[in-house]
Amino acid sequence: MTTPALTLYHNPRSRSASARVLLEALGVPYEVKLVDFAAGQTRTPEFLAINPLGKLPTLVHDGAVVTEQVAITIYLADRFPAAGLAPAFDHPQRGPYLRWLAFYAACFEPALMDHAFKRAPIDPATAPWRDYDTVIETLVAQLSRADYLVGDTLTAADLLWGTGLRWTTEFGIVPKLPVIVAYLERVAAYPAVIRAASLDAALTAQIDPPAAP
Amino acid sequence: MTTPALTLYHNPRSRSASARVLLEALGVPYEVKLVDFAAGQTRTPEFLAINPLGKLPTLVHDGAVVTEQVAITIYLADRFPAAGLAPAFDHPQRGPYLRWLAFYAACFEPALMDHAFKRAPIDPATAPWRDYDTVIETLVAQLSRADYLVGDTLTAADLLWGTGLRWTTEFGIVPKLPVIVAYLERVAAYPAVIRAASLDAALTAQIDPPAAP
Repeated sequence: MTTPALTLYHNPRSRSASARVLLEALGVPYEVKLVDFAAGQTRTPEFLAINPLGKLPTLVHDGAVVTEQVAITIYLADRFPAAGLAPAFDHPQRGPYLRWLAFYAACFEPALMDHAFKRAPIDPATAPWRDYDTVIETLVAQLSRADYLVGDTLTAADLLWGTGLRWTTEFGIVPKLPVIVAYLERVAAYPAVIRAASLDAALTAQIDPPAAP
Repeated sequence: MTTPALTLYHNPRSRSASARVLLEALGVPYEVKLVDFAAGQTRTPEFLAINPLGKLPTLVHDGAVVTEQVAITIYLADRFPAAGLAPAFDHPQRGPYLRWLAFYAACFEPALMDHAFKRAPIDPATAPWRDYDTVIETLVAQLSRADYLVGDTLTAADLLWGTGLRWTTEFGIVPKLPVIVAYLERVAAYPAVIRAASLDAALTAQIDPPAAP
């Protein structure tokens, strides 16, 4: 067996969960390298040489390193277009698709950190994300417009957002508003999401074996 | 004269500066709509209907709204490929190109805000950007490897980073390390950067006319 050209450094309890969902959705062969936080595996010299931030997800494809959830999402969905998960360059939804992907990293994540850690707000005119409330209102308004983020068809952006909103609503840092819950149910029914959840549950059990009865 | 299909909501003293540089580099016709902060033009109902965050840059292309610096950069450089500012989908540098673009929004900007506003650091294992020092070290290491972010050729990623590093070094929130200064000099010599600076200087003079002698 040849080594797959795609390697995902992954832990189910990390931001790499969405990258695994996308890889499952694309139907391409990939290898998972489990990175165990408890064993300090994000802080080894070997891993820091690949990603100096010591973060997941980290993807290596034919020797090229791709980090950052949003970069990995855009990269993979474009690189393997057969799955139809990214609007083409000249599609009218291409710009909005990239907008909501970039918004995840530029606005949603830092606003979440402000909220989760109860940080004192900074000047909303200066912060790229303005403030947590505006970010959530903006997201909710968009999800109220159609079934998915950029229209009636699921894209790779929904696999990222669906995964992100799942854990943040579970942790109580995003409110379980009806429009968000309905969106999460739609994304959760997608076959690759179900498949990735099952694979990740098996991997989690391997890290933390259930206690003997 | 027909209205150009590309409209950039812009203010030279905002994050839209890099979008104008890119539009100049692409050589495509575009219209600038000046958004005057002092006149409250980012908070009008009309502008908030386009971008609920009330932020620049905001781009409208054939009726599609694209917000977020990184989304606009990726979108435009791919949509107008003749300028050769984005590696193609299957180019070995495509992943690294997207990585450094996403890193700008996901890591550089929130780390800068932490640093500029002297915020108490949050758990680096949880923050996507880890912490300011690691972000700057990671950037400096990358800039030390080649003339541009993803190799020996300038890409749209350098137009974003070159613009961002220019104002952040001027404001003293990024150190003027030799490798950063040398990079800024290389980007500043790029014809579209010079052209956009001249156009933006004229626009700034229009907002704030110099005092009479």
